[in-house]
Amino acid sequence: MKLYIDAGRAPNPRRVRIFLAEKGVTIPTEAVDLGAMAHRSAAYSAINPMQRLPALVLDDGTVIAESIAISRYIEALHPAPPLFGEGAREQALLEMWQRRVEFHLLTCVSQVFRHLHPAMAAMEVPQVVAWGEANKPRVQDFLTFLDGELKGRAYVAGPRFSIADITAVVAIDFMKPAKLAVPEALINLRRWHGEVSARPSVATQK
Amino acid sequence: MKLYIDAGRAPNPRRVRIFLAEKGVTIPTEAVDLGAMAHRSAAYSAINPMQRLPALVLDDGTVIAESIAISRYIEALHPAPPLFGEGAREQALLEMWQRRVEFHLLTCVSQVFRHLHPAMAAMEVPQVVAWGEANKPRVQDFLTFLDGELKGRAYVAGPRFSIADITAVVAIDFMKPAKLAVPEALINLRRWHGEVSARPSVATQK
Repeated sequence: MKLYIDAGRAPNPRRVRIFLAEKGVTIPTEAVDLGAMAHRSAAYSAINPMQRLPALVLDDGTVIAESIAISRYIEALHPAPPLFGEGAREQALLEMWQRRVEFHLLTCVSQVFRHLHPAMAAMEVPQVVAWGEANKPRVQDFLTFLDGELKGRAYVAGPRFSIADITAVVAIDFMKPAKLAVPEALINLRRWHGEVSARPSVATQK
Repeated sequence: MKLYIDAGRAPNPRRVRIFLAEKGVTIPTEAVDLGAMAHRSAAYSAINPMQRLPALVLDDGTVIAESIAISRYIEALHPAPPLFGEGAREQALLEMWQRRVEFHLLTCVSQVFRHLHPAMAAMEVPQVVAWGEANKPRVQDFLTFLDGELKGRAYVAGPRFSIADITAVVAIDFMKPAKLAVPEALINLRRWHGEVSARPSVATQK
């Protein structure tokens, strides 16, 4: 197995790096520098024609792209600790929360960053300023909703840490380059963020 | 169990209806009319505060929202036929393709519809015309990519029908209200679409 991944702060590579650290799993990696647009090179496009990172190449040559697909594959090989849950009910709830956080937080933060940050002008064509702006209140609305949910439980999807927390912490940390802030009033969210940020997996995988 | 769902052409309810038909599973349902904005009522918001359809309520009161989370739960209860795959490798490949189709086709088609169709003015606020337009070439690019992939295999993710095909056929059929067309030249895609559209599950769940 070989993992093609970026070492920087891009959300999807970071999700997989945190996931691997939680599992205590090390995979041979090859760095592909997003900042240098190396993901659009002919060499990497031959591996993943979608030109996205990360990608996992199995020993038989099979290429698995998409952070969540890679994470599920790792979970199948290394079930403990279960970051996608155990049993039909918990697995469905984790999937629901992973998707909610991905679509209504990570995606919205990414849209703000991609459409409003000058550094993204070459990568996001065209940048649509009105669309970047339209995502700002969506981020705030979801954070408020999540704060209410976190009043009653330890983690995003329930009593234990999961893939939904990984997506959420990566999304919230990505608010900084997107020039967005978590309101002080969201005390449950801030308690959760402090605890999750202190985990070795999250603290070491910046 | 009770499934709250819309009977119309909205993509996510249709995904779950096709999935259930493929499984041969019937669940008691309660219609929530998206066209009448019933998903934003106080009654439905108490079930799913995200105000999205569908939602599955278990006998213990647990609410599972998100089409893919609901489908995974059904798959756990009714494993045959396996629409999320079997074994780590196939399951990861299906997840990858499901996500590629969802993010680079279904989402893009939906953005065209939501930001350019006059009927969506009350639901998508603000409509950003430039963002709707920016998604049109993305749809065409992904369709061309998918056509090339379908040259070598029967279905989106491999030799058998899966959740990735359900997402793809729903996305492509949703191009009609979005006023988009599949180019005649994409013959592999058109062959696949004809075959998948003839399946009883897809043909009956419009």
